[in-house]
This record gives sequence, C-alpha cells and structure tokens, in this order.
Amino acid sequence: MAAGLFERLKADNRPVWDAYTRHEFVAGLQTGDLPEAAFQYYLKQDYLFLIQFARAYALAIYKADNLAEMRSALAGVKAILEMEMELHVGYCADWGIAASELESLEEAPENIAYTRFVLERGMAGDLLDLMVALSPCAIGYGEIGARLAKSRETKIEGNPYITWIEMYAGDDYQQLVADMAAEIDALAVKRFTEARFPDLSKTFATATKLEADFWQMGLTAL
Amino acid sequence: MAAGLFERLKADNRPVWDAYTRHEFVAGLQTGDLPEAAFQYYLKQDYLFLIQFARAYALAIYKADNLAEMRSALAGVKAILEMEMELHVGYCADWGIAASELESLEEAPENIAYTRFVLERGMAGDLLDLMVALSPCAIGYGEIGARLAKSRETKIEGNPYITWIEMYAGDDYQQLVADMAAEIDALAVKRFTEARFPDLSKTFATATKLEADFWQMGLTAL
Amino acid sequence: MAAGLFERLKADNRPVWDAYTRHEFVAGLQTGDLPEAAFQYYLKQDYLFLIQFARAYALAIYKADNLAEMRSALAGVKAILEMEMELHVGYCADWGIAASELESLEEAPENIAYTRFVLERGMAGDLLDLMVALSPCAIGYGEIGARLAKSRETKIEGNPYITWIEMYAGDDYQQLVADMAAEIDALAVKRFTEARFPDLSKTFATATKLEADFWQMGLTAL
Amino acid sequence: MAAGLFERLKADNRPVWDAYTRHEFVAGLQTGDLPEAAFQYYLKQDYLFLIQFARAYALAIYKADNLAEMRSALAGVKAILEMEMELHVGYCADWGIAASELESLEEAPENIAYTRFVLERGMAGDLLDLMVALSPCAIGYGEIGARLAKSRETKIEGNPYITWIEMYAGDDYQQLVADMAAEIDALAVKRFTEARFPDLSKTFATATKLEADFWQMGLTAL
Repeated sequence: MAAGLFERLKADNRPVWDAYTRHEFVAGLQTGDLPEAAFQYYLKQDYLFLIQFARAYALAIYKADNLAEMRSALAGVKAILEMEMELHVGYCADWGIAASELESLEEAPENIAYTRFVLERGMAGDLLDLMVALSPCAIGYGEIGARLAKSRETKIEGNPYITWIEMYAGDDYQQLVADMAAEIDALAVKRFTEARFPDLSKTFATATKLEADFWQMGLTAL
Repeated sequence: MAAGLFERLKADNRPVWDAYTRHEFVAGLQTGDLPEAAFQYYLKQDYLFLIQFARAYALAIYKADNLAEMRSALAGVKAILEMEMELHVGYCADWGIAASELESLEEAPENIAYTRFVLERGMAGDLLDLMVALSPCAIGYGEIGARLAKSRETKIEGNPYITWIEMYAGDDYQQLVADMAAEIDALAVKRFTEARFPDLSKTFATATKLEADFWQMGLTAL
Repeated sequence: MAAGLFERLKADNRPVWDAYTRHEFVAGLQTGDLPEAAFQYYLKQDYLFLIQFARAYALAIYKADNLAEMRSALAGVKAILEMEMELHVGYCADWGIAASELESLEEAPENIAYTRFVLERGMAGDLLDLMVALSPCAIGYGEIGARLAKSRETKIEGNPYITWIEMYAGDDYQQLVADMAAEIDALAVKRFTEARFPDLSKTFATATKLEADFWQMGLTAL
Repeated sequence: MAAGLFERLKADNRPVWDAYTRHEFVAGLQTGDLPEAAFQYYLKQDYLFLIQFARAYALAIYKADNLAEMRSALAGVKAILEMEMELHVGYCADWGIAASELESLEEAPENIAYTRFVLERGMAGDLLDLMVALSPCAIGYGEIGARLAKSRETKIEGNPYITWIEMYAGDDYQQLVADMAAEIDALAVKRFTEARFPDLSKTFATATKLEADFWQMGLTAL
C-alpha cells in the first residue's frame, strides 16, 4: 500500500471521483457563475450536514480501539461542534441566511442519503469502514479547494465564492486532509486486507456518488 | 391515544401521506398505465430494499426489551429472509428480471436514503423510533393495496399490476399491517409521551417523503 | 492460517482455556459430584444467558456484509429462540425449576459481564470481533462435551449430569461447533490481519475468563 | 416528578443504594483504615473505567436528539479525555502507580461488568436509559464525597484518602452532579413514562449493584 489506501480507492473509482470533484457546481464556484441561490441552498444543507458529521466522529470515538484513536476522533467532534458550526453560521449570515433559518431547516433527501449512509456503514462495519465512508467529503473538499486555488482558470477578482475556495485550500484544512489520509493508512495497517478491497471500494464509490448528488441538489433546487 | 399512534402520525402528516399513497406511480398501478420499465426498475430496487428491511428487523430483535418483542421482530426477519425474498425473486422472474441481475444491482440513492434513515433512526433512538420509521412502508403498502383492490377505478382485466395489488390487499399482508399497528400501539404505551410527538411526527414525515421518492425513482429512471 | 483462527486463539491462550474447559465445575459434571444446587443455579442463569446470545446473533444479522452471512446468523437466532429456550425450560423443569421462576430471575454479575462484553465488542468492532467473542462459549461447550463423553473417567451410571454431557457431545451440537469454526475462518479470510491478532487474542482471552467465571458463579452461589 | 427522576430511582432502590454508597470500602475511605493496596487496585481499575465512560459519553453524542444534547455529552467526553485522565494519572503517580503500569493493565471482571452493561444499555435503549445507567457512578460519587466531607466521623488529619474525598465533595464535581441530575430530568420530560419506570428502576438497580461490586473488587483483590 505504498500509495496509501485513499489513493487506491480513488484510482479504483476515477470516473465517479471526477464526476464529484469536477461537478458542474464546482465549476460554477471556480468561474463564479454558480447561481447564488444554488450556493445558498447548499450552505443551508451543509449546516445540517455538519451535525451528522459530528455524530459520525462521535461514533468513531465509541468504536476506537485505543486512546490515540479516541483522541483523534474527539478532535473531529470538537472541530465541528466548537468551531466549524460557528464559522458556518457566520458565513451563512454573510450570505443572508439567518441563524434562525438554519435551525428550522428541513433536511434534503440528498443530505439524508449521504449522512445516514456514512453513519450506518460505520455502525455496521468497523472504524475503517467508517473512515472510508467519510473520506470523499473530508479529503475531497481539500482536493477541490487546492485544485481551484492554483488553477489559472479560477476567477479571483469579484468571484463571490473565492473565500469558500480559500478556506478549503488553506493550510488548516489541508492539514486536516493530510491527517485524515494518514489516519486511514494507520487503520489500514491493522484492518485492511485485499479481500476487503471490493467492499471498501464500493463504500467509497457510493459515498462519492452521494457527495456528487449533494452538489447536484444545489442546482436542482433552483 | 384512542385512535392509535399510527393514525395520529398520519393525521399530522396528511399532505405528505397522500403524496406518497396517491403518488403518480400508484395511480399507474391502478390504471395499468404505469410503464413496465418503471415497474421493473422499482422491482429491482425493492429486492435490495428487502435486505435492508431484514436488517432493520434484526436490529429490532437486538433492541427489544423482552422475549415477546424479540419474537415479534424475529417473525419480521424470517418473513423477509425465508419467504418474501424468494417470492420476490420469483415475481421478478415473471417480469423478465433474472436472479443473477438482482444479485449485481447497484442501490439507487433513493433506496439508500430511505433504508439507511430507518436503520440509523432505529439505532440512535429506541424501538418506537425504529417502528415509526418502518411504518410508512409496512402499513402504507397495506393501505394502498386495500384501497386499490376495492376501488371501482382500478382496472382488473388486463392490468399487469393486478397481482401486485392483490398481494398487498390480501389477508396475509393485511394481517401483517394490523400486527404492525398493534405493535406500535403496544410500544407507545411504554414509550410514547406527548413531548416526543413532534420528533416522532418528523421521523414519520421524513420516512413517508422518502417512500414517495422511492416511487418517483421508478418514473425518473425511464 | 492452516490451523484455523480459532485454534490459533486457543493456542495463544492455553492456560486460560484450560482454566475454563477444565474448571472444577466441569470436573464435577464429569464425576457427578457437582452439588445439585450449583448446577441449578447455573441452569437458571443459563436461561438469561440464552436471551442475550439471541441478541448477539441478531446483531450479527445486522452487521453482516451479505445475504449468506445474514442467513447464517439468523440460524443462530432461530436455534435459540425457537428451540434451545424451549428445551432449556423443559430441562430446568426436570431439575425442579419452574418456568415462572425463570421469568423472574435476576441476572448474576458474572452473567452480565460475559454477555454484555460480547454484545459490546460486537457493536464496537466488526463481525469477526463478535464471532471471536462468542466462540469460547459456542465452541468451548462442544469441546467440553466431546472430551467428557469419551473420557474413561466420566461417570455414566447414576451421573445426574450425563444428559447435559451427551447433549453437547451429540452430533447436533458438534455440527454447530464445526459450523461456527468454519464461519470464523471464512470471516478471517476477509477481515483477519496479523496486526489484529493481539486485539483478537485479548478479546478471546477476556471472553474465556468470563466463561470460567460463569462456572465459578455456580460454585460460589452455594 | 417533582422530586426528580434520579431521586425516585434512588428511593425505589434504597437498600441497594445504601449498600453501594455505604460500602465497607467507603467506610474505609472515611476512617482512613482502608488498606492502601485495596485503594491502589481500585485506582488502577478506575483508569480503565474512565476510558469506557468516555466511550459512553461519545455514545450519548451519537444518540442525542439535538445540538444542546450533543454539546452536553461532548462536555462529558472532554472532561474525561482532556482533564480527568491526566489528573488520574497524576494521582496514581502520587500513590506509586506508574503511567506505564496503567497502560498495560488487565480489566477486572467487575470493571467489565459495569462498563459494558452501561454501554450496552445505552446502545439498545435510548438516551434516558444510558443516562440512568451512568447515574449511580456520576451522581453516587458526588453523594459519597459530600456526605464524607461533612461527617464528623470522617478522619481528616492523616487520612491518606482525604484528597479523594475532597475532590468529589468539591464544587467542581458537585456542579457536575447537579448538571447530570438536571439532564436526566430534562430527558425525562421527553422520554419518561410511568410504564417505563420498572425497566428504568431495574437498570438503576443493576448499575448500582455493579458499582458496589466495583468497591468490593478492591477489597477482594487483597
């Protein structure tokens, strides 16, 4: 596994991965042409998404085999509940979405599909299943942010989405991505077998498709 | 709770319930005008759905408070794994869908959304949360079957879907529906409070909407 | 893994395994000298134990990766809820323990410790963790029964425990033992790595010690 | 429920509660006569206990119905993993127990019994079941600490256990106790019914007995 499990999973699911990371929604972020209503719809659902992701990291604490794994997962819960949610509420406010609106939102089916798939896979399987199901989101956003930040085709001046791109391209988020990939590799040392690869790849493919559906949700909502 | 908890939940979510039980897909079953490809797509996904529902009943055995609840949930697992799946494979064969095709299907996102929502709600909540999440499917199909079977507008001669309607209108399925409603009421005696009603109603509404999406999936797949 | 994972686990925990399978309680079954009150206490707790084991197999259905694993675990639930519990109630009646007494028993701490450890290990880990935690009971009883049945030192005439020995030495139970070992090996093909061996061996050791405590419970209760 | 659910549970299980909170081990802390080896054995197991309790609070995050419940449970995880464990390691060092020894300890069966019972009850039931199972520990220690701190019979000068008593009698811990009782009452508003009282009382009784066994473990280890 010289390349790392995440890279192998990505290589095994290239068309699906590209359909997600190069989705029309992402292209719209890059050019700045994404309709604002699509982004606002996405932002609102992303608020609910964060709550479910905090639950997934809490599940990872519960499922951990040792204190190091517990503390690593706790960092994930804290990052979401103590920082990201507040940042997100502030960012939503910048986009004209009130905190009160966030609290009374209804979850879109695309949101339910992805988050519950992750939680369920994590409960039925082991910690590696859970982390693989989480990875298209956590790592994919970092990849999208980094690619857009260094692409010449990315509009910077007057692009309303440039702060979004910069956040995911930034050092803090990129470190989180590196940590996640390292954690998957550490789990793989203990729990990966070639015989598991087909199932893990299927989990990865499903999670990636459901992430692409999450982008599509923003466009469809228009 | 003279009316039974299920009836209260339905009454609290009437438009959503009607959108599900009187969906265009259902109307197509009634008139026989549903495109066969839509029905075939639905049948295939329903095979994967049954597997997840067997898991939900297995979860109900695990979560049961006593032997009676365990045996009741076991009956659900057995009904699916030892009877319904075989019937379903045979029924699919009648519709030109080979068993081998069923075994290599990919789950549709609409299928993932509903089934994982149910499993996840059941794991995070208690047995009442689980049964309420299961009820729109289990009881709704019985209501649809019974309504269509006695409606004058239902085409009988030459309706390719008449056996489907008759199965869900039949005594065996109707008894299962009655048992499910009775079980929810029995659980409610122990676990229902008025303060839980909003959450339970939200679970019911979400599950019902995801069931309507499951019908829609068949039409969209065309 | 030519020897099979179960054999490796046993070899890695020989003193603990012997302390369990050659416990004073077992020696008492063999010679017939075990005080009847100890056996009766054990029988009563074993009734409650079966209920928790049925839950463990239900959890295995939920955690299964495919239909074959689901059906295998379902066989375990059915064996307990539809056959073993009834046999156990009948057997208890032969020993003067009324069904009504079984229904109002309080679980002994030794019983809680073992059963909840198994259920918890199974939920937090994967299906292999669960099966390894279950194996000292399921397979160990078969080993004890077989050894006692063919030992010249086992008292046959007038040994009140001879039916117990014959049941676990019998073809039906021995087949169940062989199936369980085969299932662990099948799971190991997919989920075992050398890096997991220490944790799995620890789970096995703990479960085996807690089984020995279960025998001891009967003696201590005198 | 004017008295609060916790008080009702305690009143329903008075002899069991007294056997736990007035256990010989506790009396030994009060008089200073508890053999140091018993206390050291207890301290070591308590280290492993904390890890399982952190998992229980992580489970509470996962099972929470809303953000407020999630944040409350997160406070519990953080208190243990980021503060109590470090304090405990330091306290153990004062008692001559090295950190390295803590990391290679084997869990005592009494420890397994209580912690896995709590985790299992929490997973199978709802958040109220989980909190009720946790309460004899969290609240009981506060009650013991407060009682001993104000009792004239408590030896202060030269009592090697006085810092232990003062910690649990202190404002920080007493606040935690008050918060826990308030949280149980808040959960009860939503999830308590009289019909659940017998099961909840049984959970409480079992957890309390297993806590008493935890004290006894220290004495038996001598």
